[in-house]
Amino acid sequence: MNVAIMGHGVVGSGVAEILIHRNSLIAERIKNDINIKYILDLREFNDLSYSDKFTKNFSDILNDDSVKIVAEAMGGINPAYDFVKRCLLAGKSVVTSNKELVAAKGAELIKIANEKNVNFLFEASVGGGIPVLRPMVQCLAANEITEFSGILNGTTNFILNKMIVDNMSFEDALKLAQENGYAEKDPTADIEGHDACRKVCILATLSFGKHVYPEQVATDGITKITLDDVNAADSFGCVIKLIGHAEKLTNGKITAFVRPTVVSRENMLSGVNGVFNAIMITGDQTGEVMFYGKGAGKEATASAVVADVMDCAKHLESRKYLDWCDGDDNYVVNDTDSEEKMFVRIIGKDFDSLKATFQKEFGSLTSSVTKNEFSKEICFITNPIKKSVLNEKLSRFENIEIKILHTMI
Amino acid sequence: MNVAIMGHGVVGSGVAEILIHRNSLIAERIKNDINIKYILDLREFNDLSYSDKFTKNFSDILNDDSVKIVAEAMGGINPAYDFVKRCLLAGKSVVTSNKELVAAKGAELIKIANEKNVNFLFEASVGGGIPVLRPMVQCLAANEITEFSGILNGTTNFILNKMIVDNMSFEDALKLAQENGYAEKDPTADIEGHDACRKVCILATLSFGKHVYPEQVATDGITKITLDDVNAADSFGCVIKLIGHAEKLTNGKITAFVRPTVVSRENMLSGVNGVFNAIMITGDQTGEVMFYGKGAGKEATASAVVADVMDCAKHLESRKYLDWCDGDDNYVVNDTDSEEKMFVRIIGKDFDSLKATFQKEFGSLTSSVTKNEFSKEICFITNPIKKSVLNEKLSRFENIEIKILHTMI
Repeated sequence: MNVAIMGHGVVGSGVAEILIHRNSLIAERIKNDINIKYILDLREFNDLSYSDKFTKNFSDILNDDSVKIVAEAMGGINPAYDFVKRCLLAGKSVVTSNKELVAAKGAELIKIANEKNVNFLFEASVGGGIPVLRPMVQCLAANEITEFSGILNGTTNFILNKMIVDNMSFEDALKLAQENGYAEKDPTADIEGHDACRKVCILATLSFGKHVYPEQVATDGITKITLDDVNAADSFGCVIKLIGHAEKLTNGKITAFVRPTVVSRENMLSGVNGVFNAIMITGDQTGEVMFYGKGAGKEATASAVVADVMDCAKHLESRKYLDWCDGDDNYVVNDTDSEEKMFVRIIGKDFDSLKATFQKEFGSLTSSVTKNEFSKEICFITNPIKKSVLNEKLSRFENIEIKILHTMI
Repeated sequence: MNVAIMGHGVVGSGVAEILIHRNSLIAERIKNDINIKYILDLREFNDLSYSDKFTKNFSDILNDDSVKIVAEAMGGINPAYDFVKRCLLAGKSVVTSNKELVAAKGAELIKIANEKNVNFLFEASVGGGIPVLRPMVQCLAANEITEFSGILNGTTNFILNKMIVDNMSFEDALKLAQENGYAEKDPTADIEGHDACRKVCILATLSFGKHVYPEQVATDGITKITLDDVNAADSFGCVIKLIGHAEKLTNGKITAFVRPTVVSRENMLSGVNGVFNAIMITGDQTGEVMFYGKGAGKEATASAVVADVMDCAKHLESRKYLDWCDGDDNYVVNDTDSEEKMFVRIIGKDFDSLKATFQKEFGSLTSSVTKNEFSKEICFITNPIKKSVLNEKLSRFENIEIKILHTMI
């Protein structure tokens, strides 16, 4: 069976290498031979054993009816969106690792795939090599998913982990991540939460059936997290993680966000370190299930793309059904203001006077209070309270600095 | 589409309830209607809304060509084996949660399913509601699996957890597990490791392609684990877990075992508490991936069976391929005697004289040593050493009691 690869960057070259080096293993497993006919890339790759497969012309792929499966690994929306759409319309199955594309255009592309009776698969778009989308759709098929929480971005998790374990500042940890190749030169998409946001969109859509768009997800990154925050959380036996979350509300709508969160060390997600990712999904029958592994990396991501190619090749005539319809403006609600335990740091003149004020005004709100060593602050975790109420109570005080984080405790 | 359920115990009744109560959700998801035509059970169930579906006669199911899918939830080998085999031979797809059956007869039943071009699926047989077998076969399809380690039995994990957290004796923790319904009246299959052993067989066969039989897996339960062992492990920042493990050896053979293991708290498996299970799988491309969730329970297990029924219904004409050929006597090797870090407790007359002896004879073997509070013993973790060498060194000493455990450190 002929396939084409679009894009020969980190992931695309990994896909090519696995398809070539593992040709016989793959053939044995799917009872079919996979042959790369084209690799689309504008750059020159003259020194590879498979240099003859390269083309700069998308039409070669589009117009070749013998190419039944296309692996898209170009990244970004343009021209990936246009190319993928035209492949699907031409009756080719497409697999992709491109989260940006799926999060922005998934509903439309899946609709076309359904109409053309071909597959559009994107396991590698969330969690790299971690199997999560297929298990969610297939293995949890008898469940209603009620919510999920995940560590969805390896770069930010690496940075936060360095801050927690090595007491490194955010800036130093980011620099180290860049030196190790875990963060881009322009790290915005990672540290501002955009990358995690796209994965929340994909997971939320598969969980609840209706497309969630990136602009609907309340997204906050980790750039405002300081070493003091990390140490204050530690004094409560907690770590700070960038958590992507979505859940069904009782009115049929959902809430979805990405934000730094104070996570109890009792929670399995707190143990997810370095560039690892994990997604905890709650099904109404099965309870909590978690998927854990490397969220990125050439081999891991490419092997997930290849697994999708293999699945397409095995089931070319029997399309996977995905419940993925278009979203709407009012579907995602982010001002739920529900009662939650909040993590509060108050920085003022000195610990004793803060504590006196605190005990008078907030004593009933919290279960415990601690101070940061050597600093003029108190921090505490509230009993469940609406953020609006908490903000109002705190607004009465002057000459203090306040920092509030959500929790999973 | 007509289905039959064999056995109306905990899992079977759960399957019936989900298929009935979620009928429209399921129909929407698979674009097909599932109708329970028969439920096979020798007992009377007169007060159920679906009492009319019961039969005591297996032939009703076998001879009804409209029944395309059979869910087996009887447990045990007999008569499940005979019934499942005859259903497959009659061209019906079968799904099961019966680990004992799959571990003992999987190779034969899969061969028949292949010949008859029907499905034989058993996601619920390992890890209850945790998606693991399908992700392993489908999502990791481009990987060679090199090894796996798992906490595969909720009962023993509950008992060990109570010993660790609540300082409870083995006997008291077992009693509590029985009171909570987590352990059977006869707990042998759980506490002696037989249940975990069957799951190792299934996982090892799917990982490496050749049937592993229960009698080939070196199986040791938790009955010899004492509170002193647990506390000694704790003093090294470790917990004791019942670990099922298998890995590929360089000679094409494998090793497979179930045994109590001293696990570092740095390892994700150490955080798997209570009746939860987790399986850590290493793929050569994707690295470590872990699947975590409730390993048992009516709803979780039944929902996994129903997901398999749904998968069969969607792909009745396109069989899943499983690489599962018969095993042989020499395939599993358990006397590898490889170099490992071992956890050693030596109980003698008093700590000081033990330590003096230890430092003279074993100083070079270990990185650290500790004593149990109030007890006349030392414990240490060796540098990597063959168990045979360690045993020989220890055999020189008299009047001491020695306890050795394997580690994951």
